[in-house]
Amino acid sequence: MSVTAAKGFRAAGIAAGIKQNGAPDLALVVNDGPRRAAAAVFTANRVKAAPVLWSEQVMKSGQVSAVVLNSGGANACTGPKGFQDTHATAEKAGEVLGRGAIEVAVCSTGLIGTLLPMDKVLPGIETAAAQLSEHGGEKAAIAIKTTDTVHKTSVVSGGGWTVGAMAKGAGMLAPGLATMLVVITTDADVDDATLDKALRAATRVTFDRVDSDGCMSTNDTVLLLSSGASGITPEYDAFADAVRQVCADLGRQLIGDAEGASKDIKVEVVNAASEEDAVEVGRSIARNNLLKCAIHGEDPNWGRVLSAIGTTGAVFEPDRLGVAINGVWVCKNGSVGEDRDLVDMRYREVHIVADLAAGAETATIWTNDLTADYVHENSAYSS
Amino acid sequence: MSVTAAKGFRAAGIAAGIKQNGAPDLALVVNDGPRRAAAAVFTANRVKAAPVLWSEQVMKSGQVSAVVLNSGGANACTGPKGFQDTHATAEKAGEVLGRGAIEVAVCSTGLIGTLLPMDKVLPGIETAAAQLSEHGGEKAAIAIKTTDTVHKTSVVSGGGWTVGAMAKGAGMLAPGLATMLVVITTDADVDDATLDKALRAATRVTFDRVDSDGCMSTNDTVLLLSSGASGITPEYDAFADAVRQVCADLGRQLIGDAEGASKDIKVEVVNAASEEDAVEVGRSIARNNLLKCAIHGEDPNWGRVLSAIGTTGAVFEPDRLGVAINGVWVCKNGSVGEDRDLVDMRYREVHIVADLAAGAETATIWTNDLTADYVHENSAYSS
Repeated sequence: MSVTAAKGFRAAGIAAGIKQNGAPDLALVVNDGPRRAAAAVFTANRVKAAPVLWSEQVMKSGQVSAVVLNSGGANACTGPKGFQDTHATAEKAGEVLGRGAIEVAVCSTGLIGTLLPMDKVLPGIETAAAQLSEHGGEKAAIAIKTTDTVHKTSVVSGGGWTVGAMAKGAGMLAPGLATMLVVITTDADVDDATLDKALRAATRVTFDRVDSDGCMSTNDTVLLLSSGASGITPEYDAFADAVRQVCADLGRQLIGDAEGASKDIKVEVVNAASEEDAVEVGRSIARNNLLKCAIHGEDPNWGRVLSAIGTTGAVFEPDRLGVAINGVWVCKNGSVGEDRDLVDMRYREVHIVADLAAGAETATIWTNDLTADYVHENSAYSS
Repeated sequence: MSVTAAKGFRAAGIAAGIKQNGAPDLALVVNDGPRRAAAAVFTANRVKAAPVLWSEQVMKSGQVSAVVLNSGGANACTGPKGFQDTHATAEKAGEVLGRGAIEVAVCSTGLIGTLLPMDKVLPGIETAAAQLSEHGGEKAAIAIKTTDTVHKTSVVSGGGWTVGAMAKGAGMLAPGLATMLVVITTDADVDDATLDKALRAATRVTFDRVDSDGCMSTNDTVLLLSSGASGITPEYDAFADAVRQVCADLGRQLIGDAEGASKDIKVEVVNAASEEDAVEVGRSIARNNLLKCAIHGEDPNWGRVLSAIGTTGAVFEPDRLGVAINGVWVCKNGSVGEDRDLVDMRYREVHIVADLAAGAETATIWTNDLTADYVHENSAYSS
């Protein structure tokens, strides 16, 4: 059901010809209101793509009527012409939909450093607008795929209101945010300040804790739009929890579809002195190429976990550290623990627990293994 | 000539049986004086192997008479027993050589988290001592190899004095220091404070700027020993330059032998506002898995360079950034530059220049590409 699960939204996904292989590459999401409140979180990368720079301007009003998304080109590092193209995209959508261009957010994904074929994009917007439908969410989700092998959607319903979403992302996933485009819609009647609060609370513990390959994109965008069409204003906690659930679900789907991965790895840091320490240690473990290779080889190489912990500034004593892999405490008190041959690593999901023995805080980072397929996928052609 | 190029040193390298395949695995380096001054730099990893903890104690006196090095086991994360084993190693070498154990530095390399077979190590020290020779430097260099495909040595001579060295390292190479063991010897008559100053100045711009895979070891050790046997005390600048040359030479050899690598990549950051900015940006580029895959595929994907720069806190304006790959400015003013088809990437060495257009400082970081062979080498067996 994707972004059209919530009432008040229509969507479409079409093949505009941006991708040379003819696959779907342009999506349109429209908020029919009555409310048009919105919140957004963008990449922390200081090199921001033109659509990010534009959408940041759009967000200043807290109002979004429509979102144009394209795959097949990131429109990043494309200079003034790239920004003009994004602006023209918003103008075209505004014109076709009868809205102001400044209410149209734009998201792009694909190769960095090439201009979009605007002779395909602008007619594509007209085509997509003609196909807008209350059942178009799936097609929109399909049209934003790049190296994704599956499209990603999530829906959570409350008492009479719904939060629905679509996401794309399969590589270049790293904190602040993970590399991806996400559009979340809701018919809950919620103002932009509340949307912003709920969205930031959710992304901080979900997308910001997905780290596929340590690489941060220039195009990351997460949008949360409210139509208010249910007429119901939920309790904040219930609404925020629904947004967090949708984000967590999509974050897990992103890791599950990470480029070349054969293992999904849950890195849980426990007994940290602070949440910041737990996140820092979790990220250090999740980014350790040697560990990621070892997990690929189904090798419970806890020495590489300790090496990674040792590079952080977190509070811990080396001789109190513990590491469990799939439930077996292979490292205790910073040294050899239970027999590593007891660790069963046959399944796709691997669970690493790092015990810092320094407090009571915890954090979980999701990552995946490093494989020859990842290398192939990112070296055989420009992406 | 290795560590015996300088007068006043003897060395040996033997197969003690620590490695199950019977390859050389134990080296001994002895300083016969008259001086026994020494300096050392150790890993910045907070999880330090037993031999590092021991050698840090040894260095408090600034005197080192001998170094015992073994491959086949890192003796890291091995608890109190591991430290006792290192201590017993130093005691045994001291006894055999007629020196105090506290003057014997110990270095170990290999798998983390397993105890050394002391029934092989201790007799091995006796065997090695019996084979000590002024021509034993090559054998010592061979005995410290782990996944190295070649042994690494370097020699620079001044006016009547010499600096010679051996190194091991092929993976887990990351700043602070690169993962490796290095023993540098000199017959220049230099005190421990001067050795320390020259060594730190050298490692800061050489080993600390080698970043193979972003992973920092628990065992890194660089030792610089002076016998004073030439009777000559060189000018500081000439001596420091010789030490720097040897470290730069070995650092380049480490990258040239990095696990699975097919490309050696020189990342040169220019026109930075500060040297710290240049180093931060260089490391960010050198650690970007997507870029390292692209270089493997001979793809001059400058967008990935800009993405990496964008994650740093360095001073720059996105629309003034420039990137040259093998002499072709593929990115100018943060956007498309010269034709990327002009870039010739057939050769092993690849030169990336990142121009921050923010000042006059520069720094160079060496790294290598990310390959399926790297994944295989680090997943097919525990290492």
